[in-house]
Formats: sequence, C-alpha cells, structure tokens
Amino acid sequence: MGPGPSDVSQRVLNAMARPTVGHLDPLFIDLMDDIKGLLQYAFKTDNPLTMPVSAPGSAGMEACFANLVEPGDKVLVCVNGVFGQRMVENVTRCGGQALVVEDDWGKQTDLQKVEDKLSAHPDIKILAFVHAETSTGVRNDAQQLCKLARQYDCLNIVDAVTSLGGIELDVDGWGIDAVYSGSQKCLSCVPGISPVSFGPRAVERIQNRKVPVQSWFLDMNLIMGYWGKGGKRAYHHTAPVNSLYALHESLLMLKEEGLTQAWQRHQQGHQKLYKGLTDLGISFAVDESYRLPQLNVVSIPDGVDDAAVRKHLLDEFNLEIGAGLGNLAGKVWRIGLMGFACKDRNIDHCVASIAKAIRQPCV
Amino acid sequence: MGPGPSDVSQRVLNAMARPTVGHLDPLFIDLMDDIKGLLQYAFKTDNPLTMPVSAPGSAGMEACFANLVEPGDKVLVCVNGVFGQRMVENVTRCGGQALVVEDDWGKQTDLQKVEDKLSAHPDIKILAFVHAETSTGVRNDAQQLCKLARQYDCLNIVDAVTSLGGIELDVDGWGIDAVYSGSQKCLSCVPGISPVSFGPRAVERIQNRKVPVQSWFLDMNLIMGYWGKGGKRAYHHTAPVNSLYALHESLLMLKEEGLTQAWQRHQQGHQKLYKGLTDLGISFAVDESYRLPQLNVVSIPDGVDDAAVRKHLLDEFNLEIGAGLGNLAGKVWRIGLMGFACKDRNIDHCVASIAKAIRQPCV
Repeated sequence: MGPGPSDVSQRVLNAMARPTVGHLDPLFIDLMDDIKGLLQYAFKTDNPLTMPVSAPGSAGMEACFANLVEPGDKVLVCVNGVFGQRMVENVTRCGGQALVVEDDWGKQTDLQKVEDKLSAHPDIKILAFVHAETSTGVRNDAQQLCKLARQYDCLNIVDAVTSLGGIELDVDGWGIDAVYSGSQKCLSCVPGISPVSFGPRAVERIQNRKVPVQSWFLDMNLIMGYWGKGGKRAYHHTAPVNSLYALHESLLMLKEEGLTQAWQRHQQGHQKLYKGLTDLGISFAVDESYRLPQLNVVSIPDGVDDAAVRKHLLDEFNLEIGAGLGNLAGKVWRIGLMGFACKDRNIDHCVASIAKAIRQPCV
Repeated sequence: MGPGPSDVSQRVLNAMARPTVGHLDPLFIDLMDDIKGLLQYAFKTDNPLTMPVSAPGSAGMEACFANLVEPGDKVLVCVNGVFGQRMVENVTRCGGQALVVEDDWGKQTDLQKVEDKLSAHPDIKILAFVHAETSTGVRNDAQQLCKLARQYDCLNIVDAVTSLGGIELDVDGWGIDAVYSGSQKCLSCVPGISPVSFGPRAVERIQNRKVPVQSWFLDMNLIMGYWGKGGKRAYHHTAPVNSLYALHESLLMLKEEGLTQAWQRHQQGHQKLYKGLTDLGISFAVDESYRLPQLNVVSIPDGVDDAAVRKHLLDEFNLEIGAGLGNLAGKVWRIGLMGFACKDRNIDHCVASIAKAIRQPCV
C-alpha cells in the first residue's frame, strides 16, 4: 500500500507466466490489437496511436517530451511535486526551454498563474502538467488545464501515471494531446510498462519535426511501424512479451469491472481509509476538493519516528507504506489505494496496523 | 527457435510470477545485489557499474551511446548487419559524428580496415561494434577489436545482445569499456531487460561529461544512485520487479550450469544442427571460422517459398524460425539455438520439421 507498485492479482501473475512467444508471432500480433483496444477504453480515446511503451513510466514521460519538443521550443510546466520537476528535466534535456508555474507541494496548480504565463508568452508551444501527483497526493485540474492549452493554441502533455484507472480521465473529452501512464499503479499490473496515447495534433507535430527524435528507442515515427493499425508490424525492438500478457490481463479486469465503477471503488476505499485514520487522530495533508483517493498523503503524528514505524509495519504486519519525497520527506506518509489493492480487507489491515505501530515504541 | 526471444523455462516463468514487492523493499534490494553479482559472473567482469537497464536491448544500446557520446564526438562504427546500422543511428541522434567501416553482410568486420580508419582519424573517441550480429549470424572478433581500440586510445562499446551466455565473452579480459546485452537471447529470460556493464574508463567519461546525458531515463549518473554499491538506493524510476525476478532466476541457471559449459552446449548444439541440415542439402551462409553457434543463418533452398514454409512450420509444427533481415530478406532463414532452447530434442524437431516442410508443397 505504498505509492506503487501496487499489489498484483494472482490472475495477472498467472497471465504473465504463460509461455513466451515471438514478438512477431501472429498470436502476439492479435494480442497487441486487443491491448490497443483496451487501452483506448481505459484512456477514453479513439486515438489510433495508443500503445504501451516497453519501459517504465519515466520512459513514457520521455517518449512524450522527446517526440514533441524540438530544440528551442518553449514549454510551460506546472510544478507542484516531484514529477512536475522531472518534466522540467525532460524539457531541458530535449533542448527545449522550460518555463515554470510553481505551486506549493500539497496544493493544486493555480489556473490563473498558468493563464498569465500563457498570455505573457504567446510562443509557448506545449503546456505540461501532472494529473495525479504521486509525490503529494494532489489532483491537478486536467480538464481546465487542457482547455487553457487549447485556448492559447498549445499542445498539452499530461502525466496520468497514477490517475489512469483510479480517477476520472477523459483523453478525448478533455482534448488531451499526449498522455502517458504506468502499469504499476491503478492498473495493478507489474511495473515496467508505460501506456501512452497521442492525439491527431500530436501525431501531426511528430510527423513534421524538423530534427529527428533524439531517442531511437522512443521515436514514435519508428514505433508506429510496429504498433500502427494495419501496418506491416515492422520489427523495431523486441517487445516485452510476458509483461504485455500481464498488461492485457489487468486491462481486461478493468473493463470487466467498468471504468466508472473502478473510479467509484477508489473513492469509496479512500472514504473508508479517511474515517479509519482520522479516528486515530491522523490528519490528511491535502485539501478534500483536490485530494487523490488512490494516493493518501497523511501527516506523521508528532513524536512518531517515520522510518522506524515504516520498518515496523513492513516487518511485523507485512505492510508497505510510502515515505514522503523531497520537501515532504519525514513529514508525511503516502498510503496507496491503487487498483487491486484498494479493497476493504487491505484498508482494515492498514488502519489496524498503523494504530498498533504508532501506539507502541517500535525501535 | 527464431532469433529471439528464445524459449523461457518453466523455472524462470515461475520465478517471474512471484508476488510483486516494492522496488525499495529490503528484500528487493538484496535481490538487486544478487543480480549484480550474477551479471558480473556472466560478463566476466568486476565492474561495479554492472546492472540491468529496465528496458529491451535497444535501450541498452542507447544507454551506452547516450552516456558516452557527447555532441561532436567522432565514433567509428563497424557495420556488417542491422545492429551495426542501428549503432550509427544512435551516434547521430546523440549529436556524434559517425565514421563507418562497412563489410558485407555475412562477413566479419575487417580488422585492417578498422585500423586504417583509427590511424587516419586520431580524434576518434569511441570504437563501436557488434560482437554477435543477430541479423547475419556472424561473430566479430571482439578481442582484437578491443585491442585496436585501446591501442588507438579509444573507448569501445560492444553489442553483446546475442553473445552473452552463448559464446565466449570476457569483458575484463578483453578490456571492454561498455557492453550491453538482452535478457531474451542466450539467457533465456523474458524479453524486456538489457544487462549493461561500464568499466572504469567509461565511468570516468560519464562522470566528466560537458553536457548532461540527453536521456533522463537512461542517465547513468542518476541510475548509479539506485543500483550503485553501498548507495542510498535513491529512487530513480520504478524497477520492473517481476522481470528482474525472472532475470535473477535465468542467471542462477547459467551459474549452476557454468559459463564455459553453456558455451560448449551451444557449440555442440550447433554441430548437431549443422549435420542435420546439411544432410538435407541446406547450406550455411556464414564461414565456419566466424559462424555463431547460437544463431544459424542458412540459405533458403532453390524453389522453396520462404514465407509459406515459415508459416507452415509455425502452424503445423509449432516451430518458429526467423526470416532474413535487410539485404538477406528472402534469401536466408535464421535458426536460433539460444540458452534453454539449445537442446537435442529441439534440434531433432527442427531438422525433422524443416525436412517435411521443404519436401512438400505447403501453400
């Protein structure tokens, strides 16, 4: 119950352990089509260029920036946590010029500040932000941010690593141009895969680049030849076949449950956890109006030893919860309720274990 | 029995299906140390910076080039197949200047031509080549090429995707500076992971770069913080936990068998396949002195329909063999004898199936 990887169901583990077939085997090609369709469902998009990048979420992030940013491009990044900062790193390393809207960790990105920057710099080409900040438990207002981007004629890049499958995300409805996620959060698949989707405006930008994408491995112009609809399935790199079996199974489970039902389950799980922890006197660090249900950031009670309690929880109760990152290190815990792990039994166990761990000295 | 992914043993599949733990869990940290030690054994190196990149071999290639090539650097690349060409792409995309020694596909890289280039261009900083060319079945003379590189004061980058575990490879003995491999060839692990190793001269170059590595995801300066010895295991990206369980198990199996024994098994398997196929009148496309035992490139007999026979083998005999790539498309088949798949039963089945498939019309 940390910030991810989340628990993986036996069903997904079993799927992953099926015999490895070739990445150009007709059986596998059919599976690729299925995965694409299921990802379109999960992202709520008809984008043909919707596929899993063969590497973790950080590589999905890099795929979006490396393909869309050209040297000299101005990119406005909203930073209110670790992953916004990582976006700035990506822009810079792609030769872009990063402008930043900063907000306090634990607060939402301020829409007015974003609009001010967009209107002051009409040459900004891309607006990038994190939908669900895993480092702080904050939901940024993706719908409004995308609207602003469109209004100022920018593309947008959205980090949906922790949001996909956990809270409402509507790629086509909100006009998202490029989005990446991770397999190991609310999809409860094994870590190592990053679903991405590129809309028509993004594809056009990629196809009309002036300079080649600096990464061969992540160049969507080449990857489209393997994952593209009706394509020749031209060999680009060897796909991580077994991890894609796992992704396929986890997406099937999401579809069986239903996207809206999955969002509701996360919200209900959060409410149960909220009640349990506040009854113990533990307070939530993020305002309710933009708090993530799947990533609960709570203040460490006074006098409690952060690391000792987390070690005790792991050793005695087989329970992992996450430490604070960056500015929040030592001040908060991050409790994940993601995907398969978001269920009553886990929440009861979590609350009971934390109750015991903070009431007794455990060093 | 294609050019990879090779067959994965049930033991490795079972290991992979163990419950996912966190990438910062103490249990997993111990496993990381084990993996590092086992990779050092497989590569024959004491390099502390020996670890698995969390993505396929193509990303391992990119990790080597992106970390070692700086804009403007001259890199000499030996090209005699697809993967040498891909190296050239990597050099260019890193802002380097690629010089090329070209040899015919199916022939070895000519050492004299390499030496001529190195001596004509004393400002070449890196010599890069493929040890085992998966596209042609050729073994390049890694030991001599590394010696030349050292003699002309260049770093070397070696593609060992198909060689690791299949033929002799001696990273420290040959003075290799940077090497990458793949999980899915002679290690018979699932695809998606790329073991790499960087020697002291390479690490020094990386630590003294003038410009940051253009890839955040593959920046070894950052990754060292997670995989480094005695480090803080600082979070960089979420490791592909289950795929690393699988890698660990496949490396254990290699160590149990013994590296030299594994090389011998591949050689013996090749000899058996050679006898079986030449008895059918099928000839081998690569000269014996530099032929790879683990990747057998054979000429398609006259009058035989390439695609139809491969489809027939897959549909009727559950046997995958590989098509020719690039210049060799339609002219050769590529038969893998890699890792777990390199065993008598498979070879008998392969020879018998090909015998039936080429003797009867199968369209």
